[in-house]
Amino acid sequence: MSAPSDDLRPYAAHVSLRWSDMDAYAHINNVQFLRLLEDARVIAFRDWFDGGGAGDRSMLEEGVLVSRHEIEYLRPLGFRHEPVRIELWVSRVGGAGFDVAYIVRDPEGVGDTVYAVAETELALYDFASASPRRMRPEEREAIRVHLGDAAPFRRRRR
Amino acid sequence: MSAPSDDLRPYAAHVSLRWSDMDAYAHINNVQFLRLLEDARVIAFRDWFDGGGAGDRSMLEEGVLVSRHEIEYLRPLGFRHEPVRIELWVSRVGGAGFDVAYIVRDPEGVGDTVYAVAETELALYDFASASPRRMRPEEREAIRVHLGDAAPFRRRRR
Amino acid sequence: MSAPSDDLRPYAAHVSLRWSDMDAYAHINNVQFLRLLEDARVIAFRDWFDGGGAGDRSMLEEGVLVSRHEIEYLRPLGFRHEPVRIELWVSRVGGAGFDVAYIVRDPEGVGDTVYAVAETELALYDFASASPRRMRPEEREAIRVHLGDAAPFRRRRR
Amino acid sequence: MSAPSDDLRPYAAHVSLRWSDMDAYAHINNVQFLRLLEDARVIAFRDWFDGGGAGDRSMLEEGVLVSRHEIEYLRPLGFRHEPVRIELWVSRVGGAGFDVAYIVRDPEGVGDTVYAVAETELALYDFASASPRRMRPEEREAIRVHLGDAAPFRRRRR
Repeated sequence: MSAPSDDLRPYAAHVSLRWSDMDAYAHINNVQFLRLLEDARVIAFRDWFDGGGAGDRSMLEEGVLVSRHEIEYLRPLGFRHEPVRIELWVSRVGGAGFDVAYIVRDPEGVGDTVYAVAETELALYDFASASPRRMRPEEREAIRVHLGDAAPFRRRRR
Repeated sequence: MSAPSDDLRPYAAHVSLRWSDMDAYAHINNVQFLRLLEDARVIAFRDWFDGGGAGDRSMLEEGVLVSRHEIEYLRPLGFRHEPVRIELWVSRVGGAGFDVAYIVRDPEGVGDTVYAVAETELALYDFASASPRRMRPEEREAIRVHLGDAAPFRRRRR
Repeated sequence: MSAPSDDLRPYAAHVSLRWSDMDAYAHINNVQFLRLLEDARVIAFRDWFDGGGAGDRSMLEEGVLVSRHEIEYLRPLGFRHEPVRIELWVSRVGGAGFDVAYIVRDPEGVGDTVYAVAETELALYDFASASPRRMRPEEREAIRVHLGDAAPFRRRRR
Repeated sequence: MSAPSDDLRPYAAHVSLRWSDMDAYAHINNVQFLRLLEDARVIAFRDWFDGGGAGDRSMLEEGVLVSRHEIEYLRPLGFRHEPVRIELWVSRVGGAGFDVAYIVRDPEGVGDTVYAVAETELALYDFASASPRRMRPEEREAIRVHLGDAAPFRRRRR
């Protein structure tokens, strides 16, 4: 299973697990996976849109809303001290938003397991005016290098 | 937008919100919606499979795993003391699992807003033997009255 | 163990548990107890300060900060569909804040178990000016009927 | 404010924040601080009792229950990409449990702010027999180097 451009290393965020991410079945709870994806977006957007810039919140993070999530759970994930490696890329760009695709897996050197594949549809928003907005040229340019294929779901519903 | 069988009231669970379900944008966070769906399943399965029975955990809840979630966020939801009404039904039955579809909305008499549409794919599992299992005739019978159409997503990806 | 004024029923909030409040030990996690206390304050303050009024957020809730928590865990609490009953009262009133004391227990008719005793120190704050503020006469009056003794901790440290 | 033995560096765990740790007031929520303390204990116990050993769960972590928390919130903490540094030590050792004291602060080089001071009372437990147990000599020895004074609370109630 691969993310975009086999000759390019996909962008990856390493996200730490919390012991409390486990539920009564003693595995990382399915809902908590989406917290990990949220962490990965926060890390990625600071790098993609702010060049790792001054603020802790990227300009884009201040004005994006999640309009849709889709996630497939492939293998159970238990708590461990090592983080998970979440590869993220942009699987769709629109005029007023874009999709992020993810693969949640072990870090290199730790293991080969893929735990989940997911996709989030994001809608750009201007909180100041409380209305949707269009993608700006500089934002479109910032995500160009991260463009890739659709998330490699096993099954997509019609 | 409707759940199964216009002439039948769809099964609905009323789920309370927590003030802490709100994030820094002061709206119920997108990930927390999935907690509300989890709550709705816990309530529903006790009724569907145990007839509201003795135990707090339905027999089926002890042996189901979430293999997939899909959710569309339609309207922002703020914290309020009134619960949300989550209509749930079965949108697919397989040999070793089934799908639950949901509409998250205001309770009757409180409002008309639909906040989200979602679908969860569940795989039956036998925790004792740690392996997948087949659906039992009595389980299939229990969900018969809850069968309905696919979740009314606005957009399904190919 | 009793809350204030044996001849008065203490104010009680009934708070629902979530299946996800359980951790990998299959009991309601110690940190989640504080979420239940937060829920109880949100419910109580709407009644105490707004008379169950129009808004979902009491005037006081908009301008209080937690400055301290103390909690003793007495009995393990498992997930169940019945709520917990949290008795709350005011154990201290100061010029710029007050303390809330709590007993977390079974609802009447469900059981007698006391799960935890806790106390939260609240500091009044004016978010608009981002500074501490004094308690207003009407707020002091509103909590008068809820005054009671210190939280019945087993052990207080010197 | 200092942890034990001025001539020894106190044990410190660096714990990452999650964007979702913020609540509707756009600061790290008071309850979430206790999640950070939980993370710090998980990290510390693996080092203290297992020497950073093989398993992801220290032997002691498998058999400790939280019987009490106390925490003072000193300064608001906003989300940032840098972790918090949580200094932990043992402030009391008993026959069947011990207390951990903590200072939650900025990492060195990031800042000087102290956000919270806390203390957790832990009771040793044997999950296998579901009963309290005594501290073992090797456990007592393992925490000897981490002994220190009481948590530096501003105010302790009588």
